[in-house]
Formats: sequence, C-alpha cells, structure tokens
Amino acid sequence: MLQPIANPPRTAELVARLRDLLGDRCSTSVSEREHHGRGESYHPVALPDAVVYPLSTAEVSAIAALCNEHRVALIAFGAGTSLEGHVSALSGGVSLDLRRMDTILAVHAEDLDATVQAGVTRKALNAHLRDTGLFFAIDPGADATLGGMAATRASGTAAVRYGTMRENVVALTVVLADGRVVKTASRARKSSAGYDLTRLFVGSEGTLGIITEVTVRLHGQPEAVSAAICTFPAISDAIQTAIEVVQSGIPVGRMEFLDPNAIAAVNAHSGLDLAVRPTLFFEFSGSPSAMTEQSEAARDLALGNGGEGWSFATSPEDRSRLWHARHEFHYAIQARRPGATVWATDACVPVSRMAECIEASLADAAGASFPHAAVGHVGDGNFHMSYLIRADDPAELAEAQALNARLIERTLAFGGTCTGEHGVGYGKSKYLVAEHGTEAVDVMRAIKAVLDPNGVLNPGKVLPGL
Amino acid sequence: MLQPIANPPRTAELVARLRDLLGDRCSTSVSEREHHGRGESYHPVALPDAVVYPLSTAEVSAIAALCNEHRVALIAFGAGTSLEGHVSALSGGVSLDLRRMDTILAVHAEDLDATVQAGVTRKALNAHLRDTGLFFAIDPGADATLGGMAATRASGTAAVRYGTMRENVVALTVVLADGRVVKTASRARKSSAGYDLTRLFVGSEGTLGIITEVTVRLHGQPEAVSAAICTFPAISDAIQTAIEVVQSGIPVGRMEFLDPNAIAAVNAHSGLDLAVRPTLFFEFSGSPSAMTEQSEAARDLALGNGGEGWSFATSPEDRSRLWHARHEFHYAIQARRPGATVWATDACVPVSRMAECIEASLADAAGASFPHAAVGHVGDGNFHMSYLIRADDPAELAEAQALNARLIERTLAFGGTCTGEHGVGYGKSKYLVAEHGTEAVDVMRAIKAVLDPNGVLNPGKVLPGL
Repeated sequence: MLQPIANPPRTAELVARLRDLLGDRCSTSVSEREHHGRGESYHPVALPDAVVYPLSTAEVSAIAALCNEHRVALIAFGAGTSLEGHVSALSGGVSLDLRRMDTILAVHAEDLDATVQAGVTRKALNAHLRDTGLFFAIDPGADATLGGMAATRASGTAAVRYGTMRENVVALTVVLADGRVVKTASRARKSSAGYDLTRLFVGSEGTLGIITEVTVRLHGQPEAVSAAICTFPAISDAIQTAIEVVQSGIPVGRMEFLDPNAIAAVNAHSGLDLAVRPTLFFEFSGSPSAMTEQSEAARDLALGNGGEGWSFATSPEDRSRLWHARHEFHYAIQARRPGATVWATDACVPVSRMAECIEASLADAAGASFPHAAVGHVGDGNFHMSYLIRADDPAELAEAQALNARLIERTLAFGGTCTGEHGVGYGKSKYLVAEHGTEAVDVMRAIKAVLDPNGVLNPGKVLPGL
Repeated sequence: MLQPIANPPRTAELVARLRDLLGDRCSTSVSEREHHGRGESYHPVALPDAVVYPLSTAEVSAIAALCNEHRVALIAFGAGTSLEGHVSALSGGVSLDLRRMDTILAVHAEDLDATVQAGVTRKALNAHLRDTGLFFAIDPGADATLGGMAATRASGTAAVRYGTMRENVVALTVVLADGRVVKTASRARKSSAGYDLTRLFVGSEGTLGIITEVTVRLHGQPEAVSAAICTFPAISDAIQTAIEVVQSGIPVGRMEFLDPNAIAAVNAHSGLDLAVRPTLFFEFSGSPSAMTEQSEAARDLALGNGGEGWSFATSPEDRSRLWHARHEFHYAIQARRPGATVWATDACVPVSRMAECIEASLADAAGASFPHAAVGHVGDGNFHMSYLIRADDPAELAEAQALNARLIERTLAFGGTCTGEHGVGYGKSKYLVAEHGTEAVDVMRAIKAVLDPNGVLNPGKVLPGL
C-alpha cells in the first residue's frame, strides 16, 4: 500500500527534525520503508514515511515528543514477526526500529531476573545466560525481541509450564506519547503498590507507549529434559488426554497437538513415515525421577484414551528426532504450497471446549479450496489453523477471511478469546466488542484517549475505529 | 473519627433514594457504620454515613449510579480485614458491604476455574470445592472475601508456589463509577485481545470500580503434603537458604521465616520450648516421591548454611505440630502486650537484598519502646515487622510511624516495594511517588480521573492527594 503522505509539509518538517537528532539513523529509503511496513502474515504492506533507529530511551523520548508535536504516527518495530498487521503504517508516519537497542543491561542471577533493552531477542538473551544455569522461558517460535513479545503479550509452546509474557514481565520502561518516561515497577517479585501499569502496557501493542526496557523473570535450567510422542484414534482422544494432564497437575514442559494434515505435511517435507493421525508431543523436565514420574503419568492417561505408539527419549539427539515433526511444521506447511502465505488463526478457549472447537473448525475448513492444518498449545486451550492462501487472490483471501470469522464466532461462543497470543493488530480489532462488550472496549478507549490524546501511537491498531 | 457529613442535604437525599431501592438493606445505625469504618490496623475509625447490602451486580450498578449522581463517596467493603485503612470513610459517604453477595456461581472443574460473587470468602470457596479434588490456593491468613483479595492484590504464604491474586484472577465483573458494568475477560487461560483490564482492576482497591464477580484459577489438591522446620545461627543463614531454595527451582509449597522475637512470643503463648533462633518453616507437596526429593534438597541446602534441628513430618497431626508456631504467631504476638494494636509493615525486596533489609530493620527496631517481631514470606522477598503499639498513645504511634518510614525508605533503596501484599489504602499513598516516580503516578492519576471523573470511588485511597 503506497498510501499518500497524510500531511506532506508537516511530515517533511518532522523528518528534517529527526535527521537533526539522529543523522543517518533516520532513513527514508524505499527499501527500508518497505521492510518496516510488513509483518509475516497476509496483511498488505503499508509503508511508513521514515524509519528511525534510536539507541536509548532518551532518544525514543525525543522522537516521541517530535511525532506528538507534529501529529504524525509513531509505530514501534521489533523483529517484524507480527501476524496481525501490528507494524503496518496505515496512515504513514515514522517506524521506530528498536533492534539497535540490544544491550543486556543487567542479569540478577540471585533474584532470577534480567533487564534488557527492548531490541534484545529471546535467543540473544538465552545465549548470554548460557553459563548462569538460568534461562528465559517464553518461546513463541520466532526469535522475537523482548519488547515486541511484551507488547503483544506473547507466549508459545512453553506457556503451559512457565506462563506468558503477562506472568514473566517484572517491570518495564515505557516512553509515553508526549515523551515522558515511565518505570512501571520495582524488581520485587510481587507488589500491591498502586495500579498495575506493567500489565497495562504488556499487550498494548505500542498504542499506549513505546516499551524501551524490559525486566523479565528467569528460571533455573532443568536438571534433565525428556520428550515423548503418542498418536490417537480421534482428535477428541488427544485433546481429552491433554485436559487430563492439566487437571492432574502434571507439570509438563510443553504439550503440543498436530492434526493429521500437519503430520502429512511434515512426512512429505522431511521424508518421514509418521502415522497420519492426531498426535501429541510432550516435553518433560525436572529431576530425573520427577521427569520419569511425569512421563509415566502422562503415558497412562494417553493409553487410557486410546493412545498408541508412545515413544520416549531422553538424549538430546533422540528428543530432537521425536520433536522433528513439530519443529519442522512451519517449513513443512509452507512447502505444501510454494509461494503461498500462511494465514495463522489464533483461537483460545477453555480447555473443556477445545476438542469441539478444533473439530468444528476442521470440519468447516474441509471443503476449503486451499490446504490447511491445525496445531495447538493444548495445555492452554490455544490452537492455530494454518490456511495456505495466495494473498494476491481476492477469492482465496475472502474465503480465508470467512473461515476465520466463523472460527472466531465459534471461539467466542465457547467462552474463548479471538487471540490467544498473536495480538489484535488491525486484523482483529473488529472482534473486540464481540469478545469484551461495548463497556469494556469503551474503558480501553478512554485509557487510550487519556494516554495518547493526539492518537499518534500506532493508530488503527487494537481498538476498533481508532 | 466522627467527621461531619460533607453535604448533609445531598447525603440525606441519597440515603432516601437508597432506602427506596434497598429497603432495610440500607442502614444508618451507628453500630453498623462504626463496624464499616475500620479495618484491622492502627488507622483511626472513619464512619460512613450509611451502609448498603446489595445482592446483585445490578443493585451495585444502581447504587454506584446514585452515589455518582449525588457526588457522594462509595467505599467497597468485604470482610473488613484490610490493614492500610482501605475501608475508612475519610469523607463520609456510603459503605457498600458485599458479603451478602456470597453465591458460588459456577465451578468448571475441567477448566480449573470457578466464578463467584465478590462476597464469597476463600474458606467458603474451599469448603464448596472439597469433593472436587481442586482448591483455591491463595492464603493471606485472614478469611477475606475473593473480591477484597482481588482488590488488594493479596497473596500470603502460598504465593511462592501459586503466585498472587495477579496470577490467579482469570476475569472480573466490575461496576464503574457511573454504574456501567464491565466484564474484563473470557475464561480462556491466556489472551492477547486488548488491554489487560483484569490486571488493571486487580489491586485498584475500589478506586477504579467495584468488583462484583471474580473468576479464579483452581489447582489440583496435591497427592501428599509434608512439613519441616529448621533453625539457623543467624538470620542471614536462614535467608540464604531460602534464596538457594528459590534459585534451585525447588517447588516448595510454603517457606516462612520467623525471627527469634517471634519464636519467643510463640513459646510464651503456647508453652513451647522451641530454640529461640532464626527459623524456617517449609511445606512440600506433590507426589510422595517428588515431595521427598524436594524436602531432601531443601534440607541439604539448610544444612549447608548451618541449619540445625531439621524436623520433618508427613501426617496431618505431626505437620500441624511442626507448623504450630507459625500458625499461632498472630495470636502469640498479640498476647505479648494485651490491648495493643499490631502495626504490620509489608516490605518486599528482591530476594538477594532480603537478609540485609530484615537485619537493618531489626537493628533499627532494637531500641523501640514497644515489643516487635519479624515474619517473612521469604520465597517472595516479602516480610512483615509487627510493632505492638498502643494506638491511642501519640508517642508510640509517632515512633512506629518513624520506624515504618525508615523501613520503607530502606526497602525502596534496595529496589523493593512499599507494600508486597497489604495494599496502599491511605496509609501508604504518600510513598507511591518515591517508589514509582512522578511520571508513573501521573499515569495512575490520569486513569483514575478518566474512570471516576467525580472522584466518588473510595476517595483518598491509593493515590496521594486524591
């Protein structure tokens, strides 16, 4: 989308001011603008007018104040792995790329926390922590920045054990629309001192402030890790097993579901010969004896639900072999249709409704004109349908849109949420009222209006009609 | 404090309207007003002008709309166990007693959650859950209401294992100042759908809205539970053991510290003969083998730090005997000085600074003119000094105030929070700027102003100068 500049003279003046501030860390090259106007999903590219690369919270503060003064949009950008159009510059403006703010500021091993600049990625943090015996647990798949993960309330495969960014962010430094800098909390593990600004900014997708520093919880590396897979006659048997594992309080490290379409895709892609059936992947961790106890308890539940072919492994090589299908899923499903875009849905329902919701969504997609598959973080009730569409084909886009709309309608009817972990962006803002009700969305709007009265922070995102 | 009615004609008209709405569930009797004008701490009584007893969210909505229309204060009241003056009617107004809203609305055993009206207490919920194999984990000591616990972001002895109300509230129904009703979230275990209104209202102490329904997480009852105690040569040895337990990832159920003054109080009160030394109390839970593994790992760490007299028990009777001193602490410390009021401080620091902070606070209190003791939820870095004062003696009050002020100054210097779990009320609002900074408190003020523009919800609480 090469949308016209909203107010050319004002934007030109702003860019000149940003150049004065940042020198060549303010760019208007088309290639950089194009790179910053897209995420990883089907949403059309929408270019910012300029891209800036700050190095410090103070620079972000100065940039925000300038954008606010000029009434020009300011859009935070991390690793660019978002899936709901979060980074699209719908009305142009300035993309604020935080990746050069990549300093690990402090590791407090005794307190199990670390403070990083927002552009540090989760893999960079974990590489830095390698010799400490600690690690950062949240794993959304992509090597996202910690700032981006906080801004979208990300989670992923390890959330069943360690929670989401909601539980793993201790404190934030945030730049407000007018340039003021807020520290949301101390490093204390808990506090009752006032409103929970940390959780207000976690998941606000750059619409209430720009996260520039993140303090996260760390966890001790488990003594041992093991893996298992098991197949089931029906999806409901696999999901029932997952429900029983959660109910039994078995502290699985990860627990992932793949549907037969997903298994078939991996077989084709990697030359494997896995049974094309509903499949659960498990990871267990802890002391060797605790791990054994967990895996035996999970196996008993699986067998009680008709599970077959239980395979278990402890060595890194064997674990990697067992989990190969799960790890390769993203590449495998993409390879099902070269050149296609993966439209990833993101329903999350109470776990008791998960089997119904997945089965109905698969039945609905059975006649689709494009390939699809389902994977699920089933310990949390969260699953993703992958629709493999040609994003430049309006008919396929409309078909996927309709499938996704029905999936979300079904999810909400089951008491769930339209997005478990990807966020709202502008792809899902139209569902917020159906999920939360007018009154709750009005409260969100009121908070947005008071924190960003000129509407410069990531306009058009999260809230409908803004 | 028998403060004058702020605006007698307006208040009289409001009370007449409330009588029309509620009949004899609106009271102006002095005894009921006195009961509702006090918590459990040193803060002077401040009477509301009337007390109302709603039965439903709809009634709370009507009451709020009336108070808002008449510009009269509305103060939520649960079990009345608050410690920082949360329920004091500083400018008169209406106390809204939620205890008749005591219906357990739904238990979703498969989803590990329950939805209750705000007046249900934690013990009532757990009695209801007894045969389900599930329980509600947060235990602040007092049999508080779930609404009150959510409003103060309560936690207590089980937080080291299960988190605080921040992690255990799934969704809320909240009545806003103008009577609008907001549902903050679905029952999905995680969501990225918009701003986290649940966490915004958790800990807001009735100043942003009135919590009328709470959906909480449940947990599976552990297969087995055991207990242990151990004494140490010095406080720092006990605290170092606690730090190492947390760092090792041993999932203790509870881990509590008592200082020698606390042990001496219990000995005197219960005729015991415990060693008057720094002491750690442990609870372990899980499968029998996991529990044994945990307790052996904790014991090894304790012995490595000079621990002596490690005692371990699994039967309910023996566990209860071991934990007797901890359970009896509140009565025992009170009995140290009949007629005195317990002023409970509530510091929470990064665990690495806990020993220093406790030792300095005990040294500061060593010359106090009243008895004192220290207990700590040491897995979280949270500890309480109990000052046994005569609340009607201005000199003792001033001495305790000065000790508490220095303790908070020390806590903040160590990177902690002025309240780990009791909340701000009006006792600690003066410390919010020192803890969070002007900018963060300004953001809190802006949110308060937009959600409660007439300032009717629990005025004078949380935010300084409001």
